[in-house]
Amino acid sequence: MWLVPENGKIKDGRAPPKTTFSTLNVSPPLEVAFPNSFSPRRRMRFAAFFLDGATRAYRHRATFSKLVLVFAASGGGLVAYADARADAAAESPGVAPKKKVVVLGTGWAGTTFVKNIDSSLYDVQVISPRNYFAFTPLLPSVTCGTVEPRSIVEPIRKIITKKGGEIKFWEAECFKIDPENKKVYCRSNIGTNLEGNGEFLVDYDYLVIAVGARANTFNTPGVVEHCHFLKEVEDAQKIRRSVMDCFERATLPDLDEEERKRTLHFVVVGGGPTGVEFAAELHDFVSEDLAKLYPTIQDLVKITVVEHGEHILTMFDKRISRFAEEKFQRDGIELKTGFKVVKVSDKTITMENALHGESSVPYGMAVWSTGIGTRPFILDFMKQIGQGNRRALATDEWLRVRECEDVYAIGDCATMSQRKVMEDIMEIFRFADKDNSGTLTVKEIQDVLEDICIRYPQVELYLKSKQMSDIVDLVKASKGDVKKEALELNIEEFKNALADVDSQVKNLPATAQVAAQQGNYLARCFSRMKDSEEKPEGPQRITKMGRHRFLPFRYKHFGQFAPLGGEQTAAQLPGDWISIGHSSQWLWYSIYASKQVSWRTRALVISDWTRRFIFGRDSSRI
Amino acid sequence: MWLVPENGKIKDGRAPPKTTFSTLNVSPPLEVAFPNSFSPRRRMRFAAFFLDGATRAYRHRATFSKLVLVFAASGGGLVAYADARADAAAESPGVAPKKKVVVLGTGWAGTTFVKNIDSSLYDVQVISPRNYFAFTPLLPSVTCGTVEPRSIVEPIRKIITKKGGEIKFWEAECFKIDPENKKVYCRSNIGTNLEGNGEFLVDYDYLVIAVGARANTFNTPGVVEHCHFLKEVEDAQKIRRSVMDCFERATLPDLDEEERKRTLHFVVVGGGPTGVEFAAELHDFVSEDLAKLYPTIQDLVKITVVEHGEHILTMFDKRISRFAEEKFQRDGIELKTGFKVVKVSDKTITMENALHGESSVPYGMAVWSTGIGTRPFILDFMKQIGQGNRRALATDEWLRVRECEDVYAIGDCATMSQRKVMEDIMEIFRFADKDNSGTLTVKEIQDVLEDICIRYPQVELYLKSKQMSDIVDLVKASKGDVKKEALELNIEEFKNALADVDSQVKNLPATAQVAAQQGNYLARCFSRMKDSEEKPEGPQRITKMGRHRFLPFRYKHFGQFAPLGGEQTAAQLPGDWISIGHSSQWLWYSIYASKQVSWRTRALVISDWTRRFIFGRDSSRI
Repeated sequence: MWLVPENGKIKDGRAPPKTTFSTLNVSPPLEVAFPNSFSPRRRMRFAAFFLDGATRAYRHRATFSKLVLVFAASGGGLVAYADARADAAAESPGVAPKKKVVVLGTGWAGTTFVKNIDSSLYDVQVISPRNYFAFTPLLPSVTCGTVEPRSIVEPIRKIITKKGGEIKFWEAECFKIDPENKKVYCRSNIGTNLEGNGEFLVDYDYLVIAVGARANTFNTPGVVEHCHFLKEVEDAQKIRRSVMDCFERATLPDLDEEERKRTLHFVVVGGGPTGVEFAAELHDFVSEDLAKLYPTIQDLVKITVVEHGEHILTMFDKRISRFAEEKFQRDGIELKTGFKVVKVSDKTITMENALHGESSVPYGMAVWSTGIGTRPFILDFMKQIGQGNRRALATDEWLRVRECEDVYAIGDCATMSQRKVMEDIMEIFRFADKDNSGTLTVKEIQDVLEDICIRYPQVELYLKSKQMSDIVDLVKASKGDVKKEALELNIEEFKNALADVDSQVKNLPATAQVAAQQGNYLARCFSRMKDSEEKPEGPQRITKMGRHRFLPFRYKHFGQFAPLGGEQTAAQLPGDWISIGHSSQWLWYSIYASKQVSWRTRALVISDWTRRFIFGRDSSRI
Repeated sequence: MWLVPENGKIKDGRAPPKTTFSTLNVSPPLEVAFPNSFSPRRRMRFAAFFLDGATRAYRHRATFSKLVLVFAASGGGLVAYADARADAAAESPGVAPKKKVVVLGTGWAGTTFVKNIDSSLYDVQVISPRNYFAFTPLLPSVTCGTVEPRSIVEPIRKIITKKGGEIKFWEAECFKIDPENKKVYCRSNIGTNLEGNGEFLVDYDYLVIAVGARANTFNTPGVVEHCHFLKEVEDAQKIRRSVMDCFERATLPDLDEEERKRTLHFVVVGGGPTGVEFAAELHDFVSEDLAKLYPTIQDLVKITVVEHGEHILTMFDKRISRFAEEKFQRDGIELKTGFKVVKVSDKTITMENALHGESSVPYGMAVWSTGIGTRPFILDFMKQIGQGNRRALATDEWLRVRECEDVYAIGDCATMSQRKVMEDIMEIFRFADKDNSGTLTVKEIQDVLEDICIRYPQVELYLKSKQMSDIVDLVKASKGDVKKEALELNIEEFKNALADVDSQVKNLPATAQVAAQQGNYLARCFSRMKDSEEKPEGPQRITKMGRHRFLPFRYKHFGQFAPLGGEQTAAQLPGDWISIGHSSQWLWYSIYASKQVSWRTRALVISDWTRRFIFGRDSSRI
């Protein structure tokens, strides 16, 4: 197969087990050297921000698609499964069918992958319980009706149809993966009158897991029962109804003041971007719209943000964090930093604080937004493949699930684990030491530097953080002031020089930006499989001869926004450029509008914003 | 009180029972004669089409509002109830509070009433489980996403706030009316953690029942469990999701052709305007949008309309009915007229036909739209007041519930029963026979004709249907050709002449138009109470001296539309003007846009239509 596991053993292209027809055997990749005229930076640029690359999808249908007949069998279902195989054998004797790529999930990662894969080369099947893609960064806006739910969703079938490809979609949930037999078990949740239990089987040649994550409750008692989450469109709709319920309840005639106050106490657990944006949205909704409609109770409304850490928005620059805290204080949003929620009941939230111990607060509605956890069936799958001790599905830098052939994982369900320099230090030394002298000269180091920087991006990051332009500076710093040309390093000295480099290895954040870039990257790899066989794009292998077929995935951060309400947004852009206020709110509007997945959603989101400006938000409980 | 029961007994203005403060006693209306310079037709014109009259609401705050202090007590809740009374007595000693008007429901009737009542004269309290008004004629469009649900709803609090009045709203459901003690029992359905059972009591001086109707299943087994209704916004949303479910299900890999066909068989029970419009919308949705997205199953879709009668749209002109049937045939929508649904199971609908007997049809989704039934608590109330043998709450021509003081019923929950001429024929004769001669001359008849025509509109309708200009023609027709001046009638001859007049008495249709006109009429009556005391507007009383305080309610039909899909609409306008095709579709667009309840909904509905033209309908399952 074309994507070789990191352990260096080249595995054969494996035909789907138990198939009766001949498969198109893509021969194992030869380790071909090719002139590396592009800098790693330039070659990485295809991993575009969000879905920008969608329309520029690389399509290389020519060579491959001519070889195979269209293989239209569904490939799933216990009955359909057997049939399809018989049919395929009958219809196309001697002609290999296209390889089956099964994609689980229609979130940022899955959808971007589907949008960008060359569907003429594969039999692509998408399975997800949601038949649409949702622009999740606008979910907090949906909770208060600033934007309507339908304005941020696009049917996955529309995306597929636009491609003109043969991609199939099934609205079902995967509940088990069988990597041995290359099958996924799916269940349809639609209706109660599906024959049997609504389960069916789909077999794959390649599996792309992009199922996202679920909310992480840290096993806090009562959270699942009493708190809202904010991960899906349905969650946002529920929150909106729940906010209205609280207001309607608080006006009812048989409540005392205490009870009214409790009902109108909105608690947000988690001071990350989602929680903070929701709190800001809610404050705007109350002050701009609801205060007029519920004049008798407007003074009883209270919003509290509970954060375990010392500050909110800690993933942002300190200036943004401070600005947000000050703005919330002015707005009357209470910040309880340093508090950890330990229990939630139907009417009270219990928190713990190092100084004050445990305390209970009555509340009317709570939104839990403290981070992400792994879905149960992914945990099962991890146990199966020996990742039981991990917290998320681990992939290598090519987004391949470790210890599992032909399975890829992208987006929030996966963690890409970067290979450490120190793990491979001996091999790196040997790789660089072309003359086997036991020492490295400056020239030897410079010869392999680019490949090393591509394979271990932490080296480049470390140099940057130390404001060094070259690894030679690093070596010099560790060896003292010697002349550059005379510099020679033995293995111990080399180890010393690179000792701290791995401190730069960081997990990627669980954001739409990362997921979309991963989907885009993987789709490009799939689409260029044939080309890259002849012309590998990746760096030289350290442990083996030849080159990696593809560049490893590398995330490019394009900045992040934190809307803080009242038409004020904080923006942290690359190069530590910070912008706070109305201007960045308009930047936010324009970027979020431009990043919409279709012209339809773009038009709708813009018209929603306009509608909000003119008429305010709707408070009907539907 | 100002509204005098039809039996002629004048009742005193009654203070709320058990009140401790003095009430403002509006003295019983004196039966003042006033020059009747307006024709009944001109005076009836205020009952405007839909909500047109809203902005022209008559407001006469001057005299009455100066007399009373603002009485801000809530008037509800077991605890709050007692408190309020004590407070009121303490705060405003010797000053009567405003009379409490409790409105149940926020549909067409209730909302129009609230919009138009002079809220400075009354302490108005609105109770409804829906905190919004919905423009129900567009519900069929919501089922398929032509229009979004939020575009047709307006929060009732916004309507109240716009009035600037002191109207209170409580999101709760009335479940019992106690007319003896003038109280309504309410229950809030919001959340599970409301203290106790969420019930509270509200007392009233006047009660306006405008709770609408529920779907009528005619006790057909399985309908409630397996069919969708189309009365509320939530129903339309459920139908939309259900349609998408059927399409997603039908594409799943483990179904056989038979099962796919079953899943894609959409059955509409009831060939009235709602059912027909839904079938047409669904057909458009499938052919214009879904066919592209589900190409493999588009040929399996089938829509069937089942109608008990011989034709669909029987309330329309025959030409419209025929056109609709032909168009449906062309569109491939199956019409099963003359079929009665007798049973619904999860997968089959059983029908009965005079010719073919019983047959079962497999189906995927069914919408039940066969007419309206009475809500259970209204049935209970009817038993309480001796209307147990009726099918809907009976009111007189002034919309007062019969046999129940100070209770009014408007909209779909009520039937206005028109007093028959034959019931009062003796009194009418006596009333006309001013000289007590035992016979009526032409002049005597003509003197009272206007009052009779107002009190018994069927007389005018009958004359019109016989193309007669005057009651004298009628009398002449029954007496043979005698000279007009010489014509004299005894009681038997008078009876004969009017014998067939009551055949023109018809129940009003259960439409938004009727409900809105009733709400508007009743609001005007309430607002003009003081003025009409001095200047009664109604006709001369037949059985008693003096005049009725108000003109009886009279419905003015402004026409009706039947959208048939494919940008074609049938319109039946007053004067039997029929228009079918694209032009009436545009008439439909413009009238429905202009009738929207607010500028917000107007803008949204128009932008929804535009969006549909440009981008089509959304098929995301949210």
